[in-house]
Formats: sequence, structure tokens, C-alpha cells
Amino acid sequence: MGVLKGMRVVEGSAFVAIPLAGMTLAQMGADVIRFDRLEGGLDHHRWPVTQDGKSLFWAGLNKGKRSIAIDMRHPRGREIITEIICAPGPDAGLFLTNLRVRGWMDHETLSTRRPDLVMVTLLGDRHGHPAVDYTVNPAVGFPDATGPEGSADPVAHVLPAWDCIAGNMAVTGLLAAERHRLRTGQGQSVEITLKDVAAAMLGNLGIIGEVAVNGVDRPKNGNALYGAYGQDFVCADGERVMVIGLTDRQWRGLVEATGSGAAIAALEAELGTSLADEGARWLHRGRITAILAPWFAANRVAEFGAAFDKAGVTWSLFRSFARALAEDPDFSPQNPIFAEIDQPGIGRYPVPGSPFAFSAAGREPPAPAPLLGQHTEEILADVAGLPSGEIARLFDEGIVKGP
Amino acid sequence: MGVLKGMRVVEGSAFVAIPLAGMTLAQMGADVIRFDRLEGGLDHHRWPVTQDGKSLFWAGLNKGKRSIAIDMRHPRGREIITEIICAPGPDAGLFLTNLRVRGWMDHETLSTRRPDLVMVTLLGDRHGHPAVDYTVNPAVGFPDATGPEGSADPVAHVLPAWDCIAGNMAVTGLLAAERHRLRTGQGQSVEITLKDVAAAMLGNLGIIGEVAVNGVDRPKNGNALYGAYGQDFVCADGERVMVIGLTDRQWRGLVEATGSGAAIAALEAELGTSLADEGARWLHRGRITAILAPWFAANRVAEFGAAFDKAGVTWSLFRSFARALAEDPDFSPQNPIFAEIDQPGIGRYPVPGSPFAFSAAGREPPAPAPLLGQHTEEILADVAGLPSGEIARLFDEGIVKGP
Repeated sequence: MGVLKGMRVVEGSAFVAIPLAGMTLAQMGADVIRFDRLEGGLDHHRWPVTQDGKSLFWAGLNKGKRSIAIDMRHPRGREIITEIICAPGPDAGLFLTNLRVRGWMDHETLSTRRPDLVMVTLLGDRHGHPAVDYTVNPAVGFPDATGPEGSADPVAHVLPAWDCIAGNMAVTGLLAAERHRLRTGQGQSVEITLKDVAAAMLGNLGIIGEVAVNGVDRPKNGNALYGAYGQDFVCADGERVMVIGLTDRQWRGLVEATGSGAAIAALEAELGTSLADEGARWLHRGRITAILAPWFAANRVAEFGAAFDKAGVTWSLFRSFARALAEDPDFSPQNPIFAEIDQPGIGRYPVPGSPFAFSAAGREPPAPAPLLGQHTEEILADVAGLPSGEIARLFDEGIVKGP
Repeated sequence: MGVLKGMRVVEGSAFVAIPLAGMTLAQMGADVIRFDRLEGGLDHHRWPVTQDGKSLFWAGLNKGKRSIAIDMRHPRGREIITEIICAPGPDAGLFLTNLRVRGWMDHETLSTRRPDLVMVTLLGDRHGHPAVDYTVNPAVGFPDATGPEGSADPVAHVLPAWDCIAGNMAVTGLLAAERHRLRTGQGQSVEITLKDVAAAMLGNLGIIGEVAVNGVDRPKNGNALYGAYGQDFVCADGERVMVIGLTDRQWRGLVEATGSGAAIAALEAELGTSLADEGARWLHRGRITAILAPWFAANRVAEFGAAFDKAGVTWSLFRSFARALAEDPDFSPQNPIFAEIDQPGIGRYPVPGSPFAFSAAGREPPAPAPLLGQHTEEILADVAGLPSGEIARLFDEGIVKGP
């Protein structure tokens, strides 16, 4: 009983952002139909894959959707997709895509069939050039500001953050436009580009101002928290931890928990400045780190971790993906957002559902991703409204495919 | 005239995620009221700051909102905030927060005043522990998988990606719950935690499956595109570029544009495998890079850039923030999402509006962030509905403050 129960969304997509958008809606209860060409979309074999080549990536980003496989080079295939996108229903006529197809699948054409269609399109950049997370990120400047202080080598991020942000924005765009339609009856086209999402965020985070107003091109600052205090330390047991002194309370907690009050007071006296000021902590972070490093080098996480938690220190271990999964119950069914489910063709493993807790809608357990074409027949019947004889012919002629 | 025109959202927040959520709504036309204590919230001086200490960060994340400054240690201050959050109106009663305040500001208490209140709360983790982007990221494993191949040092990201994702999810949660309220009359509490957002994404991207099904703990892969082909190269002019061969088309474009067809065919013959397979490109990326590196080392971006664009190669320069701003019109008012605006107390610089293009709603030009308390008086009058005499007394008694 998801909060979006009754809504139907059609998705023509590949890779991260739009599949994530569709999945986010599906995990809130919407009926999300992803259509793909007969051999699967461009992401059908995206790594990571299992030993026999099944995509864990695809399984991860398409959970809870219905899948139809159809030949869109065939006019009848295109016609059927058009019918599915434009199928009637007050909570339907919602289309998400990152496939720029001029002609039969553009907003102008589709909206002749359903004038109140809401279509959300994610593009690479505003010039029509291709762009992916891996190219947008170097273009906006983050790799040059990432990594060890003084290093000249850019470091690209591993999380496809722009895709994840843009995918969530696509959900926002769809819900906002659907809200507008509920009030006015009017559909519309909603467009965003991956590069504009990144460019806007650069401004939102103050980085454009830092360049334009301060004339500062932010250098690499290692793993330090920018603008206040936060640093990684290696402990006596070889563990590495991140500790945070962003707010005044966090800073005081960190100083107290490490018994560094006297040393910090002496530093403040020497500098003639109060480290209660976050900017002063940033400017003198090297001196602070020199005080704290011997403490962490002499102490073990097993000894101080519980005390840090009790004192409300904001901190974390660094750990690999595998270790996080092995050690942290937040990645297991002990966390209510997770369940062990059987993913057809892959096996049983812990799978996340929606991280949202809607008090009025309850929590839907995670659903597996469909097999490619798993719902072809039922979608042709219940959404496109085709009679069974015609559906059989479409299968026979190879225009559509089942799982 | 934004697509959310008429909606009113109240925001009690600090730092990135919830301020970003409120701003996203404001930039779509909602009336977003951010309330803060008299001296400003925890992020009021967040770096980057100007030479005289004005926060470019705060200005970046609060654009287009109204601001009220109020003493919430005072019972009358708390009462007024309650009135503002629960003020009548079918498109009001929407509250976004990352401040966990038990008692007067929790959902249970507020909803006694407005039973159909929609309240979206972002928390650190599900156990009630504090967590910020800087701690969630090492906890889930990305820094251990980031940076040069073979390095043992974790590299934290600089973009607060989890905050940016969670902030956009808060918007989704609010719009979905408001949609539910429009249909049922029912309000609700919507909760997400920063750590659950990250944990779910780890699963969504297939990384949990990679560990649990394949038993693989992904190592650092430098700047390589994971699972297919994509690599950074240094060119004859010293420029560094990222080139992508993720899809078959991108791969063929890259091979053709660099004239590497014969060398790649020879490599395929030697390996006895087709590099048309994305997994083969990944497994043999070192050999591919050895073929392409001399080409880039011998060529200048000025010479091949236009040809790459013409051939539809997916590629990008690496550049610093300052260089991106100096060279790329996408970060300037040549891009319709940007305008030069006067930010009171800071000055004039290029500021992004919403990256969305809603065809039925037009594009709102970027608005500056308010000064702290800039709208205190008008909010007390038009939202809390207080008579002017009482407003004057609140100012006199120091319970509220203007700019």
C-alpha cells in the first residue's frame, strides 16, 4: 500500500538516473512499466555482473517495475509503446525518459495522443552533446579538488553522484508536474540536463561564489572537512576513523572525548584566537590534527568507540564495501528497509527497499527486479488493451518478447 | 510563475540537505519560509565565506526563501513557529526539517494543531546517532574504493553527495505525501535517514550484490569507468581528458576518432575476444589504455576537441572550479538557468536558478537568498496573522529580529 498507489508511470531508459527515478516511484507504490528493445537496453549487461553475466546493476535499479520487451524498429512496436505511454487514466500519462528520440517518442508527438501527458526528459547537456556522470564530474571541477593535499592528480568519484541527484530530481519534476495537472488539467514537458544539475549544485554549495567573489580556486584538502574541523586518523589498532567538529557541540564533544581540552586551550592561547570559531578551526586544522593524532595513534576503536557514541561524538570508521556489509546491521534485514529476497536468475541476497518511512502508507517490502519482458503479455492486455489473439500474433511475429 | 505556485512550505533546518530541499521547492514557485534562531542557524557562518565573513554557502542554499529569526528558547517564540507551521490553507501545512526536536516541534505535537500536517524529517541514522555526509561516506565504503589503483589511502568525496541526494529525496517525500493528502485529506510524518539513503544506494547500484553474490570487494580503479571502458589521458598540451566507451556506439566512436581501429583489431585477435563486449573492455582496459595513451600524448585538445564533438565522442576536460567558471558558458548567464544577481551583503555574481525547464510554467529567474530575519515582520503578519501591535511588542522584547 504505497503512498503513490494507483499512479502509473512509463519509463524508457538506461543506466542510472532515470531507472533510479522509476524505481523510486515504484518503491512508493506506483505501477512503473519499463520498456526495452528485445535484446534489453544499453544497461542490460552493465557491471557488476554475476559469474554467468547477469547484471547486478540492472537488478539493483529496476526493482519493483514491470518489464515489456518490444521491437521499436517495427512501426507496430512504436505504436504499442505510444499506446502504453498515452493509455487513459487520471493517474497515468506519466513518462520518464533519458532516451532522446526525435519523432515518434518526443513530447510534441506523444502529446497529440494524450494532451495532458507529463513527460520528464533527462539529457546530457543543454547543447545536445552526450554527457555522463563520468564526464560531467571532471567538467565541473570536483576531481581537481579531490584527493591528497598537494597532489596534482585529479581523483574522480566512484559514486555516480550526479546521476543519483538527477534521478531524484526527475522524480520531483514528475510529481510537481502531475500536481500541476491535477489542478489545471494541463500536461507538460519537463526537461533537465545532467550538466545543468551539476552546474547549479556548484552554485548552490557556494563554490561559484568562492571563485567569483573571493577569487579562490579551492585546492585539494585531503579528507579534511572543508571550512570547520573534521579529519581522518589512524588508530592504535590500524583502524581509520573520521571525526567531526563542524558544529560547536561536535567540536566540544571531540575535544572532551579525546581529553584534549588543555592542549587545545594552550593552542588557543598561543594563536590568540578561539577555536570555537569554525573558520579558526579550519585555518588551524593542521595544529589541531597534530594534537589529536597522537591520541588516536595510542587508542583503539574497540576502547573509545562506545564512549564516543555515548558522548554524542560524530564519527565513523572507514571500511570497504564488503566490511560494511559484514559488520554493519544497517545493511542487513535488521534494518527494516532491507530484506533478503530471491532475484530471479541471480539468487538470494539483501536488497534495499525505499528508505522512506511514510507513516500513513506503511513500508512496502523490497521487490525483485523483473526479468526482461517478464510482464510483456500482461501489459499488452491490461495497459495497451489488446485482445489475446493480437497479443499472440505479436509474439509469433517477434515484435514482442517474453522473459 | 512556478509550477508549485501557491504552495507554502516551512523549513527548520541547517546545512545542506534540507536547505537544498526547501530551495528546490522555492525555485519551483513555492513560498518557502525558513525559520532560524535569532543568531542564525548552525550553518549561518558555514564556509565558504567572504572576506568579511558572509557565508556564500548560506547564500547558495537559501535562495528564494523568506526568513524569520525568532527566539525558540522563549515559549512565545515556539508558539509562533507552531502557528506558522500549522497555519491554515489547503496548500500549506508542509514542514521540512533536519532538526530533531522532541516535544513542541515533533510530528505528534504539531499534528494536534493541524491534523493534516505533512512533516518530512531527515535524520542521521536509524539509531538516533548523529551522522553527516562526511561520516556516512566512509561508513558505507566509497572512500576505500576511490583513488589511484593500489593505493591504501581512502579518499573522501568533496561533493556532499549523500546530502544532495537526501535533500532531493526530502522533496520527493513531501510532494508524494502532499499528493496523498490531496486525495485522502490525511497528513503524515515522512522520515528518512542519511545513512539509509546511502545504504539503499549501495544496493541500488549493485554493490551489495557484488559483495554478497560475487564475493568481490571492489578495489580502487583510479579514474577508470567501472565495468566497461572509460579512462583519463594526458594530452600533448598537458590537458587531461576523460573519454568514455561505455556503450557500443561510444566505444566505436572513440576508436574511430583516435584512429585506433587497426590496433584494437590486432589486440582483439591477440586476445581472441571481441572488445565490443563491455566486460571484455573492462577486463582488458590496461591493454586498451596502452594503445590510446600515445595517441593522446601526441595530440592537443585544441586539435581534436571539435572532431570528437562532431563524431559524438563522449568526453570531457578535467579542470578546476575556477577554470570551469572562466571557460565554460554553461556556468554563466549564457545558460538560461544562470543570472548575475545582487546578493545582499555579498555582491553580484552568477547564480543558478532551478535546472528544471517546465514547459507549462516558464522559468523563474534566480532569486537571492534572504538576509537572516528579512521577512520576520511580514511573516508574523501574513502567515501567523498577528496584529501590528503584537508584532511591535515581539520586536521590542527581542523575541523576534529583523534583518
